[in-house]
Order: sequence, then C-alpha cells, then structure tokens
Amino acid sequence: MSGNTFGTLFTVTTFGESHGPAIGCVIDGCPPGMALSEADIQPELDRRKPGTSRHVTQRQEPDLVEILSGVYQGKTTGTPIALLIRNQDQRSKDYGNITDTFRPGHADFTYWSKYGIRDPRGGGRSSARLTAPVVGAAAIAKKWLKQKFGTEFSGGMTQLGDIQVPFQGWEHTTHNPFFAPTGDAVLLERMESYMDALRKDGDSIGARIQVLARNVPVGLGQPIYDKLDADIAYAMMGINAVKGVEIGAGFESVAQRGSVHGDEITPHGFVGNNAGGVLGGISTGQDITVSIAIKPTSSIRVPRHSLDIHGNPVVVETFGRHDPCVGIRATPIAEAMLALVLMDHALRHRAQCGDVVPQNLFTGD
Amino acid sequence: MSGNTFGTLFTVTTFGESHGPAIGCVIDGCPPGMALSEADIQPELDRRKPGTSRHVTQRQEPDLVEILSGVYQGKTTGTPIALLIRNQDQRSKDYGNITDTFRPGHADFTYWSKYGIRDPRGGGRSSARLTAPVVGAAAIAKKWLKQKFGTEFSGGMTQLGDIQVPFQGWEHTTHNPFFAPTGDAVLLERMESYMDALRKDGDSIGARIQVLARNVPVGLGQPIYDKLDADIAYAMMGINAVKGVEIGAGFESVAQRGSVHGDEITPHGFVGNNAGGVLGGISTGQDITVSIAIKPTSSIRVPRHSLDIHGNPVVVETFGRHDPCVGIRATPIAEAMLALVLMDHALRHRAQCGDVVPQNLFTGD
Amino acid sequence: MSGNTFGTLFTVTTFGESHGPAIGCVIDGCPPGMALSEADIQPELDRRKPGTSRHVTQRQEPDLVEILSGVYQGKTTGTPIALLIRNQDQRSKDYGNITDTFRPGHADFTYWSKYGIRDPRGGGRSSARLTAPVVGAAAIAKKWLKQKFGTEFSGGMTQLGDIQVPFQGWEHTTHNPFFAPTGDAVLLERMESYMDALRKDGDSIGARIQVLARNVPVGLGQPIYDKLDADIAYAMMGINAVKGVEIGAGFESVAQRGSVHGDEITPHGFVGNNAGGVLGGISTGQDITVSIAIKPTSSIRVPRHSLDIHGNPVVVETFGRHDPCVGIRATPIAEAMLALVLMDHALRHRAQCGDVVPQNLFTGD
Amino acid sequence: MSGNTFGTLFTVTTFGESHGPAIGCVIDGCPPGMALSEADIQPELDRRKPGTSRHVTQRQEPDLVEILSGVYQGKTTGTPIALLIRNQDQRSKDYGNITDTFRPGHADFTYWSKYGIRDPRGGGRSSARLTAPVVGAAAIAKKWLKQKFGTEFSGGMTQLGDIQVPFQGWEHTTHNPFFAPTGDAVLLERMESYMDALRKDGDSIGARIQVLARNVPVGLGQPIYDKLDADIAYAMMGINAVKGVEIGAGFESVAQRGSVHGDEITPHGFVGNNAGGVLGGISTGQDITVSIAIKPTSSIRVPRHSLDIHGNPVVVETFGRHDPCVGIRATPIAEAMLALVLMDHALRHRAQCGDVVPQNLFTGD
Repeated sequence: MSGNTFGTLFTVTTFGESHGPAIGCVIDGCPPGMALSEADIQPELDRRKPGTSRHVTQRQEPDLVEILSGVYQGKTTGTPIALLIRNQDQRSKDYGNITDTFRPGHADFTYWSKYGIRDPRGGGRSSARLTAPVVGAAAIAKKWLKQKFGTEFSGGMTQLGDIQVPFQGWEHTTHNPFFAPTGDAVLLERMESYMDALRKDGDSIGARIQVLARNVPVGLGQPIYDKLDADIAYAMMGINAVKGVEIGAGFESVAQRGSVHGDEITPHGFVGNNAGGVLGGISTGQDITVSIAIKPTSSIRVPRHSLDIHGNPVVVETFGRHDPCVGIRATPIAEAMLALVLMDHALRHRAQCGDVVPQNLFTGD
Repeated sequence: MSGNTFGTLFTVTTFGESHGPAIGCVIDGCPPGMALSEADIQPELDRRKPGTSRHVTQRQEPDLVEILSGVYQGKTTGTPIALLIRNQDQRSKDYGNITDTFRPGHADFTYWSKYGIRDPRGGGRSSARLTAPVVGAAAIAKKWLKQKFGTEFSGGMTQLGDIQVPFQGWEHTTHNPFFAPTGDAVLLERMESYMDALRKDGDSIGARIQVLARNVPVGLGQPIYDKLDADIAYAMMGINAVKGVEIGAGFESVAQRGSVHGDEITPHGFVGNNAGGVLGGISTGQDITVSIAIKPTSSIRVPRHSLDIHGNPVVVETFGRHDPCVGIRATPIAEAMLALVLMDHALRHRAQCGDVVPQNLFTGD
Repeated sequence: MSGNTFGTLFTVTTFGESHGPAIGCVIDGCPPGMALSEADIQPELDRRKPGTSRHVTQRQEPDLVEILSGVYQGKTTGTPIALLIRNQDQRSKDYGNITDTFRPGHADFTYWSKYGIRDPRGGGRSSARLTAPVVGAAAIAKKWLKQKFGTEFSGGMTQLGDIQVPFQGWEHTTHNPFFAPTGDAVLLERMESYMDALRKDGDSIGARIQVLARNVPVGLGQPIYDKLDADIAYAMMGINAVKGVEIGAGFESVAQRGSVHGDEITPHGFVGNNAGGVLGGISTGQDITVSIAIKPTSSIRVPRHSLDIHGNPVVVETFGRHDPCVGIRATPIAEAMLALVLMDHALRHRAQCGDVVPQNLFTGD
Repeated sequence: MSGNTFGTLFTVTTFGESHGPAIGCVIDGCPPGMALSEADIQPELDRRKPGTSRHVTQRQEPDLVEILSGVYQGKTTGTPIALLIRNQDQRSKDYGNITDTFRPGHADFTYWSKYGIRDPRGGGRSSARLTAPVVGAAAIAKKWLKQKFGTEFSGGMTQLGDIQVPFQGWEHTTHNPFFAPTGDAVLLERMESYMDALRKDGDSIGARIQVLARNVPVGLGQPIYDKLDADIAYAMMGINAVKGVEIGAGFESVAQRGSVHGDEITPHGFVGNNAGGVLGGISTGQDITVSIAIKPTSSIRVPRHSLDIHGNPVVVETFGRHDPCVGIRATPIAEAMLALVLMDHALRHRAQCGDVVPQNLFTGD
C-alpha cells in the first residue's frame, strides 16, 4: 500500500535513504535451486554506479552488495533474498543549506506536504540512489529468465537533449559513457562537448532511452489491468525523472493508419513490430521495445525561485555532486525494471497456465 | 494476480466478455454514507456508449447499469458495490468467420497462445466493451472526489491522425462527436471529412487524447513504486489500444534544459506545470495532465495477411461494426482511469497520514 | 483491503446483502480449459441451502446460480468467472422491528459503529447467506483439485451442544439432517429431540464441525506467514459464528509430550497425524484435518437486554426464520473454505516451483 | 505470494535464516512523525530472546537491533523502516548430523519436498528465531496504538502440559520464567520441577497461552474475509508450533446456549465477553481475548523413527540447544502478532472511514 514493494509474485521490497546507514531490498518469490552469489549481482550494480565518467555525479560509492539470506550452499532456497548495500560517501554537509527549502523540480515540496517531515540528506528516499537495490534484484530476475527462456536485455540512449543518436548496434553501448548505441566518433564527441558546455553553464538536460528484451516467451501478461505493457509503463514511469513511456510505435501510432500499424503475420512470424511485442496486453514472442523520456536533472547551479517551508520566497542554487543528465545512468535501471516485469509475469503465467510451452506456429514453411 | 482487479484500496474487479450474458464489476472500498444511485453512474456510461455518431460503431447497446449491492436507502454502506450491465446486441454471427483466425493487431494470437482457448465473439474479454464497467465504477470515484476535494475532470482529443487540434476550451468537447476541445467549425468539418474518407477506405486511424484533473489535493502518491504518475501510466497504458503515455511535458522534456523544465515556486504557487502536477511521485496540487497515444483500430476491411490456429496463411478482412478510430470514444475512458487512480491514492494517503489537510503555503502575499 | 476478496492467486470477490437484489462473486485465476457449467456448482449450493429440514431456517431460496462470464463452449477461458444468485424470498418485514436495535451477539452494533450506517434487512452483509457465493466458487476449486490431484473433501458434525458424535464414517453424513458422521439411529434421534426442545424454548446451541481433505499433494503452503494452516485458520475463523479452530491434534497438543505428538516417519509413510497434515506450514501429503467451534445462533426468541442506536435500553426478542443451530449448515461451508485455501496454494506452489511433482519417498519396502 | 510479508497496509516483510548472516524485516506503512529509536524496540526483543532461564534454549543471542532506514532525527518519516539483527551464536556443527534426515514434527520433510533444497542449519527459515524481527516490528505497532488509542497488551501461559495456571493477574508474568499470570509460589515451583523432569527425560511438552488487548477502538475489522478474528487466527496459527486458536469463549461455545453466549448490552457496556471483543468480524471496543495451543517442541533426545532424504529408515535423536517447551517464549510473540493485526486494521479503518471516532453510546446513565 505504501508503495515500496514492486511486483506481485516476484516481489522486491526496498528500503533506505540516500544518506542513511544502508539501502537494500528483500526479494521474495525467487524459484529455488538457482545458483546465485554476489558475483551475479555486482556487475549490474557497477553498470549504474556513480563516478564512472566526468559526465555523472562524482559521489564515490562502491555499492558493494551483500546477500543476507535465501541462499544456501550457493543456491537459492525459495525463501526471501535480502540484499544490503551500506552507504559510504555520505557528505551530508553538501545538502545542509537546503534542509528548509523546496528545490524546484524536486520532491522536496511534495514529501514535506504529504508527510509533514522529510529526510533532506541527498534527497532522502527520493534519491536516484534508491534504484541500486532494484538493479540488484533485477540481476537475479535476468539470470533466471536467461536460463529459462534465453531472454536477453539491451538498452541505450537514443536522444540527448536535441541530439538524435541513430541506432547502429547495441554492442556500442559499452564503449562510450552514454550507453549510446553508436560507434560514430564524431557524434560521440559532440555529445561529450554538449555535456561539458552544460556543466559549465550549471545546467542540465533530458534524454530518451530505449530498452528491449529478446527471446520473451509468448503469453506473458494479463488481459485487462495487469497487461504486460501497462505494467511496463508503471515500472518505467516509476523511475526517477521519467515523464513519458512508449511501447512499440508509441506516439507515432497517432498518425498511423490501421493498414500500416497492425503487424501482419506469416508462417515466418510477424512482419514488423509496431506492437512492440505486446498485443492485447500479452507478449507476442517478438522483442519487447520500450522508449522513455527522462527530464533534465532538477539539481542545477542556475538560480531559481522557490519557497522555504515557512512560505518565504527564496532563491535556490544547488551545488554538490549531481548528474547533469540523469538519463546517462538510466539505461541499466530501465533494463532492470523491464526484467522485473517480465519475471513477475513469467511466474504469474506459470501459476495460472502451468509450465506448458505453447505450440510454435511459425514453421516458416 | 490474474489482472482483473484495478486498485489497491478502492478496487474494481471486472468480469464479462463482449458477447456473453453480461458484463460488470465489483467495487470495494467505497467509503460509507455517500448518496448513490444508478442516476449517478448512467450519464458516464452514456458518454462512452457506442452508436452516438456515424464515426463510431453502430452496435446498439443501451448499457443500462443496475446496482446489485452496497447501497441501502440511497446511501453507500461501505460494503461492495456490484454493477451489472446485461449485453443485448450480441450479433455473434458477425464474428463467426474469425473464430479460427488471428486478426492482425488484435489479441487473438496472444490469447490463444496463452490460454489455449479464446472466446472470439466480439473480441471476448479483450473487447473495448469491457471499459464500460470501469467507467461506471469511476463515476462513483468522481462523485466522492468532487464532494471531498472539489476535484473535476476534463479531457478531449488533441490530435486525430495528422490533424492537430489546437486547444480552445474543454467546454467545446460536448458539442462535437470527437470530444475535441475546439469550436473551430472548419477544423471540425475537416475531421468529419477525414473520418468519412477513412470509413470509405475501410481503414482506421490513431489519435492523441489529453485528460486533466483539477483541484487535486497535495500529497497523493507514494514515493517509490506506486508513484502517482506510475499508477497513472499503468492505468492509461492498460486502456485498449494505448501505445504511449506522457505526464506534463512528457517527451518534450528530452530536449528541455533543467533551467526551463523545473517549475519555479512563488508565494502565488507554481510557475508553469512541466511536472504535470506530480513531483517525486506525489501530487503537487496543480492540475494533473496526461496525454496518451491511441493506435488505429485493428479491425479494418483492408485485406491483411495472417495465420489461422493451425498455422496456415490466410487473408483477413474484418467486416462488422467497428470504430474506425477507437480514440474517439477514449476520452471518457481515460478520465475514468485517472479518477480511479486518484481515488485509490486518496484512500491510501488517508490510511497512512490521516485526514489531516496540509498547510497551504501559497498565501500570495 | 476492504476484505471482500478471498485468496491471492485464485481469488473470490463476493458482493451482496441478504435482502438486496442479488448476491454473487467474481472468481479470478481459474486455469483455462476446464469443463464447467452450472451443473458443477448447483449441487454444492443445494447442500448448504436453507429449508431442507425442520432444524434449519424455513426461508425458501432456490439459490439458482448463473454463470455470467469466463466460460466459452463449456470450458473455462482463464478470464474471471462471475456467479450470480438472485435473492427471492426477501420478507424484509420480518426484520423491520430491529432496524434501530442492536441484537446481542450480532454484528448490528459493530457495523453501525464502524460505518455509521447498516443494512438491517436480514443481517445485510453479515448474514450467513453470504456464504452461498463462496460455496459456489469452491465447487470450481474442488473440481480442479479433484482432476489435478484426486483431492477429495469430507466433513460433518462431531458435537452438537454437549452431545458428542463418535465418528463412524463420512458416508453417513448424507443420511441425516446434521451432516453427522454416524449411523447410530438412537443418537440421531436424540439429536433431533434435542433440537426440537431447543426450538420450543426459542433458544439455540453451538456445534463442533470437522472437515478433512484427502489426496493433498505434498508441498502446499508458504513457510512464514501464509502457512497452509495459518490460511486455513483464517478461512475457518472467517465463517460466520466460528470461535475456534484446530489443526490436527489442536488443543490436545497442550498436554502432549513431544515423544507422543511428533508423528514418526517410516518407509510406509507417517505414523499418526497429530500434525493434521501440515508441518512448518507446508502440507505433508497426509489428510488435512480441521475442527471448528461454532457458537450458538444469536437470533433467539429468549428476551435479551440491549440498546437502540440512541443508547436507550431495550429488550430484544428475535422472531422470524432462523437456524437454531447454525452449525448444522456449516459443514459444506467449512469444506468450501478448505477447498479454496488448497486451490490458492496449489497455484502459488506452481508459480514458485513449477509443475514438478516431488519424488515419492514412501516405497513401503 | 511467497508468504514472507505480513499485513496489508502496515506490512512486515521478513528475511533470514537461523544460521545465516542476519535476520531482519522491512516495515512499510508506518505513519510519519512518531518518535522512534532502537530503544523502543530492544526491550520487546529482550522479552523473547533465548538464554534467559534454564528452561529455554541456551543459545546466546544478544539480538541487537539496528534501524537502517525510515527514521530521521528520531522520527518516522513515512518511508520503510528496515530492522537488522546480525546472527552471532551460529554453532552449525550442532546440526550437522541432521542435514540429510527428516526430524519428526519438524519442517524438514515438507521443505525438502516443496523446494528440493533446504537450509538445515538450525532449522533455517523455519526456526522460531524468525519470530524476532516480527517482535521488533510489533514494538513499533504497539507504540503507535498506545499513543493513538491507549491500547495495551498482556499475555501469559495459562496451561503447561496438564498443569492449569489459574489466573491471578497479568502483573505476575514478569516475575517468573513462564510468563505465568500467577503469584502462587507452590504452583510455580511445581512448574519448575515439571520442566526439570522433562529436560532430564529429553522430552518436551505443550502449552496454552492467552493474550489480550485492552482499549481497542470500536470498528476495527472487515465484514467478510478480513474479519478481525479471522486475521487474528491467521496470525496466531502462523506462529511456529501453534495447533489451535480460540477467540473469546472459543470451543466452550459449542456447548453454550444462545441465551448464555450472546453478550447482552446495557448503558454501562457489554455484560460478559464471550465474543472476545469481536462481533461480525469487527471490534466491539471490549478486550480482544485470544487463546492458543502450542505443541511440544519437536527437537527431543528421545529416539524416534524417521527417513533420510534417500528414503532410508533412520533413528533420530536431537541433541543441541532446544527449548523443551516452546510455549514458554511464545507470550511476547503472540502479543506481537495481535498488535500487528490491530495496527493493520487501524490503518484500514482509517482508509475507508476516515479518522472519525464513533459516538460513545455507553453513558452509563
């Protein structure tokens, strides 16, 4: 009810604040018998951790994960898996001057209004740091989906401010600091310069991220409210700073005719994927494709008008260590959320329909 | 788990298929003591019912709602409110020829793959007809929110295919068949011609719908997973044919700088609403603004390639009574989903924080 | 949240009041492909319906059930199954004089205190009549469990007031009006006389009911909170008038030594069943055995002191049609609740552990 | 779904195994603004911790609790409160010889059958040690209920084996090692001797525990499935080793007449409390009274027949540190579960009906 648990059958309950003693989560519903250790989880955490390039926050957090439960002799037991990440680099003094002030674009005003109290240190519970436990949990989901169905995830930045990033291949995303799916050195340098200029201005920028899942089994999703795409939209819009979500053709569908949009079917499979891998809320077996819009970071040096908690007008300039484009680190997070949704629906499907694998119609003959 | 219940504290569990004996829902969690009768619900159902203009399906369904429980002497009792709508115009013969065929863009293939069985009559459970009970349930939520907070809802079509509809005022939406927020007679005639041409072609088109809630109390929403905007995204993407959701500035945020996007705060209130009324997952008290992309209707006369359930290639032409633009009737549905999300979060807020109203900071002095 | 849905994966959401237009439920999570019609459900409803002997209420309700959804061509489709039972014999005038009075032992006082409003007609929502939809839903669960695992249910009255009913065999329960597992004609006549005397006194009496499930697969239940026995206790204590629940040896365990209580295991299986078929919250494969205590009916002719809604003292004598021992009709209800719990846990087990059947250790060699 | 979360609005998600690195829980839904520190929680943990007398296990665990989140400057913030308790005295060698053996009366057989894997160290997840985090969480619930309504909890042992403990007063429970509500020195010495003899025999014994809540507001509970007493039964039966639960008169109701059982109402309040403080599933404002039956400890030295995981017959004698009567330490656990149920229902009531306090009818005039 209080919104700190994600999922229905594969659930992730997170806890922690940016500058409290620790963050972490409890993962419930993981099937028993899967090999699991910290080595399966740490690499995903490393992909999203801060301090990896000059374009992201310089906060130093090793984000070392400890498995506290649910694993015996290297295998999951079917009981809850608790992950613990101790906070280390908590320079709370950086935030001292904003304790009584509502930073524009931030959750300060709404938390204070809702609860009558808020933990201002580093954004408290609303910090993007809280995506770390989820990325850890998703590493477990990814491993299970990979073993069970061969499911794989990719993702990257397809737009940075007004710079479009034409898709060249997912393999490029590991070779640049933006998770950009391009090997175009000129474009990448332009992105670097763009970020450097922004940082100099003390300003920030938005981004568009695309994520994709391959080898998704047919039949995941529920028909009315927990449609696969509805749950994906929920998962994505829940990521900090996301303001828009598209599945498949997304907003392009508005200007499409039905004779163009509806993906035809042949003995070789679907022709096109405007559906983004979901029809009627249920996976088609095609790639699940999702795009999200990420707003510019709200913590900027540019002075802005606001109020303090007494209603007095103030001018806010946010110093400290911030990502000038939160979208840069969003790719592993968006992949993680997609993995959690698929994992949950895989178990839900199994509950209702059993382990039966549907007949493959696509003989190609 | 099986995805037929919407909400957590104010829940709507729907049942029924397009051409079964009846559709309906059970609403649980409605506070006791509110005056309620069918007269509160029927008008909302009438807004979305078919057959109201030549641009929507000609199926004749009075959609008369009956309250079966939860009301005593004209007041809600706090027990479940069941709504029943008998299906009447079930011309199943219209659909007979598609029983064994997967219509492109429809849920036929995925239902069959998931369940190994599907009710093909009028789309069965995946029919847009199943939005009727939800619209009925939302009428109850709207009434409660209006009485409690003065909350009001508006919505309309802002784009039809490639025709943009510049906003002139919500009051116009009741005077044209598109829920278009415009009084521009020339534009409206162009929309009518556009639809007539489409229908002649046996094709269909997408649309963009915007909905909005005014007088939303500050503090609704949860901080991590059940963010207000995440739940709105879930609700909207769950509407049949929706492929994209935006809150506030939506995808425009991608190219915005932080110094532009973040809404400043003054003693008179927020300056701008790029946030769409939500910060950190919690309502700010501003208007909640949401846009959705609706794909073109999948049922078209244009011949399309597909398979039958045995894997044989077939050509599908869908005759019968269909909306050439499902977006036309989507406005009351999108409003309904928004109302259900707000209602649920109003009760959740009350559970955790009590009935306390936050101090109003905006003195304007 | 509002407590009208039973179960987590196989859910039953009920609605209705004793004297409203109808009662019913929505069953969600039923696996697809099972043959189902009203003929599977009606016999269970007939077992618990009123008016079948002179020892139960003479209200005449055929309790005819209608399936509104979720079945196509005689098979479940995996979508929600709605059951509707129209109320017919609503002699509300019988209850007119108790509208403003709190009957001792009834929910009148608590409903009024909680909601500030209550439907007094026949007990409204708190009437035992509301067990009918659940019995209907359980008929579906029973059918599935029987087909899948061969699971079967039995139950009967083991004590009526201070009359013990020594167990002779479940087959006797269908040959007397008490569901008593005995063929002892003298005892049965004594029970009849006992009831006749009570009715003459205008008083009522309690009862003890035992129910049992055979052929339950090993491994159902969760380890900490949703233990199989915890969920059974919840289900049983939720039945109207139940004040105590025992699993296996129940309260006899208090005076047992560990060397007596703990059921030993041999290659032929367990020796004894003090556990009642559950160890550590998970089924052992033995019979699940449950006993419940049912309080005497609260509606009696004997005058009793109480208050009206204004706080004035009144004397209450309840006339009308009432069961002098609600325990008589409790057997099919208790069986139904047990079936719903097992069904839910069967699906939960499948979600987490798949369809795998555990190795049978009991070779008997 | 996997049964490691207790509650619906005030939720406790636990994790950990008896001999893993740590145990703990995440508490979600705690209202903001309540003063909270470890000092509020530790005393409750100390009441149930092992090693406090010669009649309980000699395992040495300080059970020091650390709050990891959800508290800022000494007050709850409305975000999840994570509690961490590191395991210290993990003498796993004590359990080495039972790794492949199913101890009679234990969860060994069922865990192994369900999951195909189990953590045998100290009982793993099925250890009574896992009640510690819940007792910690309940300390928070108790504090809130006390501040809000003045609610208080008591409990103690009312029967040890076949020794009845006549009630003299709850204040006695802190002055003897059994939580016995008696100051009768002769009786207490008899209980000590009884336990000493049992320990010498290497055997164990059951117990009956009663718990009670005072100053419970009227109106908590839901009418059909989440009845207050149903949720209490669920909570109690979920405690390790519990085999029976009674509310109010419990199994005595079976032989009671309605004219005796139904508590009459006068302007001074209810006369008697056979109801145990619950009518129709909703609290009456009287004391909530609950009794539970706790089976004898399954870990005994007396040799017992069983199987190993290969199906071979074995003889099991369990050495190591065990409570010869698990009932001795059950009182604080049962109180904790009762507190969690009331807390959850207090928030649920507030969600649906608001903070309104019902009119007090009992003027006494």
